[in-house]
Amino acid sequence: MKRDSGWPECPIPKSDCENILLAHGSGGRMMHQLIDRIFVEAFGTAELREAHDGAVLQPGSKRIAFTTDSYVVDPIFFPGGDIGTLAVNGTVNDLAMCGARPMYLSTGFIIEEGLAVEDLWRVAKSMRDSADSAGIRIVTGDTKVVERGKCDKLFINSAGVGVVEHDLDIGPSSIRTGDKIIINGDIGRHGIAVMSEREGLSFQSDIESDCAPLAKAVLRMLDAGIEVHCLRDLTRGGLATSLVEISQTSGYNLRLNESSIPVRDDVRGACEFLGLDPMYVANEGRFVTFVPGDNSDEAMEIINSESPDTSSSVIGSVGEKSGALVLIQSIIGAERIVEMLSGEQLPRIC
Amino acid sequence: MKRDSGWPECPIPKSDCENILLAHGSGGRMMHQLIDRIFVEAFGTAELREAHDGAVLQPGSKRIAFTTDSYVVDPIFFPGGDIGTLAVNGTVNDLAMCGARPMYLSTGFIIEEGLAVEDLWRVAKSMRDSADSAGIRIVTGDTKVVERGKCDKLFINSAGVGVVEHDLDIGPSSIRTGDKIIINGDIGRHGIAVMSEREGLSFQSDIESDCAPLAKAVLRMLDAGIEVHCLRDLTRGGLATSLVEISQTSGYNLRLNESSIPVRDDVRGACEFLGLDPMYVANEGRFVTFVPGDNSDEAMEIINSESPDTSSSVIGSVGEKSGALVLIQSIIGAERIVEMLSGEQLPRIC
Repeated sequence: MKRDSGWPECPIPKSDCENILLAHGSGGRMMHQLIDRIFVEAFGTAELREAHDGAVLQPGSKRIAFTTDSYVVDPIFFPGGDIGTLAVNGTVNDLAMCGARPMYLSTGFIIEEGLAVEDLWRVAKSMRDSADSAGIRIVTGDTKVVERGKCDKLFINSAGVGVVEHDLDIGPSSIRTGDKIIINGDIGRHGIAVMSEREGLSFQSDIESDCAPLAKAVLRMLDAGIEVHCLRDLTRGGLATSLVEISQTSGYNLRLNESSIPVRDDVRGACEFLGLDPMYVANEGRFVTFVPGDNSDEAMEIINSESPDTSSSVIGSVGEKSGALVLIQSIIGAERIVEMLSGEQLPRIC
Repeated sequence: MKRDSGWPECPIPKSDCENILLAHGSGGRMMHQLIDRIFVEAFGTAELREAHDGAVLQPGSKRIAFTTDSYVVDPIFFPGGDIGTLAVNGTVNDLAMCGARPMYLSTGFIIEEGLAVEDLWRVAKSMRDSADSAGIRIVTGDTKVVERGKCDKLFINSAGVGVVEHDLDIGPSSIRTGDKIIINGDIGRHGIAVMSEREGLSFQSDIESDCAPLAKAVLRMLDAGIEVHCLRDLTRGGLATSLVEISQTSGYNLRLNESSIPVRDDVRGACEFLGLDPMYVANEGRFVTFVPGDNSDEAMEIINSESPDTSSSVIGSVGEKSGALVLIQSIIGAERIVEMLSGEQLPRIC
């Protein structure tokens, strides 16, 4: 398939088969056709063409990182992305948060009988484009079809394998008093983009998902010798929940300045309208980096050069090892404790 | 948790929370409790306790195998197993079919709001028991909850990583004229067990799923120096579909003797009652091995010693490289062509 000249039309014409049938999940002839004509066409990976149930890979003699996520976002298409973009970037980002170079992706589709084949093709194209951008290869997969009403259009699981090329122990247990906490951009866009599409809301400006791959920025920081102590992408539960997790796992207090946490005015307005706190709204292209204070300027420079449309900020620092609290200094000067999300704020945003 | 003295009661008492809520998929406090009290308790893996989104692993300098499958079986509990047994053994078996030693498993849960927590605990226990039997470790996972009616109780994706310790190229392209085709036991039990449970049918004898891990038999054949040309587990589409795949990928004709293909009388009876051909019914613990003729006795001896409750058979051999047909000699002597399953025979049997 020639992708240089753009994506072709859906390889299964509507006259042939417009909607997914149960037989597409049978293991038989129709499933083979679906895999060959949609997934192999879009992903173009030699391993998939081998039609074997697993891929044999040679990542070298390094440590590997291994991660999985299922995606059940509703709706499957939203401003700034779709379930396919999420399924690739989300897993790429989990590998990046281990400090790993993303290498191989698996993908498991659970499809509701009746889904338009055209929609599946659109999602598969997004996955290939996202995988190419992130430098990861989709090497193995699985397809199941369930009866109408037994799932919601399309769920995708992706698992990722990456190689760890550094010797750092990146995680909450490595943070230290005085570390700066850097965020790579404004928060809350992904959750609001999905929510507004789902509820048919329109705000004054278009709010697009921030969905993006984060591996390159992380790998460049590591290559530059920055002493990265902890990384965490901010998905379900938002910035607040991620920081509470890190604080509770490490035992350190984290001190934030509310005024330095970037939230776009339109996102803040939408959050006020919906009764949400942007600190708890999901993101899909945002992460926090914990580094020693004298590494923070260089880290921010690298992060900014990898995502020119956003700007990173120091949002706080690591305090003493006692209490395991996240404390935020509000714009008017009061300090309050940030809690983990309790209950459900926005279901099915990823 | 002490497993020597058997499994404890469900760690979340009914008085605390009887059914899954949307909030269990929120990324917040309730999801953390669910993961800690059900999955970490059952799986007991150090990497999961680290509450990180991915696991960093050290498989050594070998080639790795990587595979994924989603499980949507209906019902989630059936004679001889449940969706958890399937999710572990199915992925272990896909690794084994690459000739790989199963090492690490990921698991992604998509849960319908309202599922009994007790049922989730039962499935998690099955997964741990199956993982222990197969010698694989569950190292990373993900949990999503969707609204009532948006999935069917529980779907599980598992992805697996294994190490390849041999230098053989195992796959359809390695088969040769004269290779014997060995099956490790009788066919059709898994599909019939699930179908009879789903439809509330009862047959004269209990037909239990054949669900079982296959890695040990495969690894022992490789360790013994048997020249394994191709391996394939017989899941959706059954024996017929797997052999047609191998024939079409390799270009060789495969010649089978119907009388040597083991089918239990009760399974044959159930198939007749349901209008099914056992050649197309799914299995979850059956595989075919292609080996040179002079290796076949030793291969069968090893396979039999690893699964004492079944017996392997030579069901046919590889013919000439032309036509890419699967030909079966019937009990009365007539030869017919075996086709791939077209359409859907038994939906959601895995």
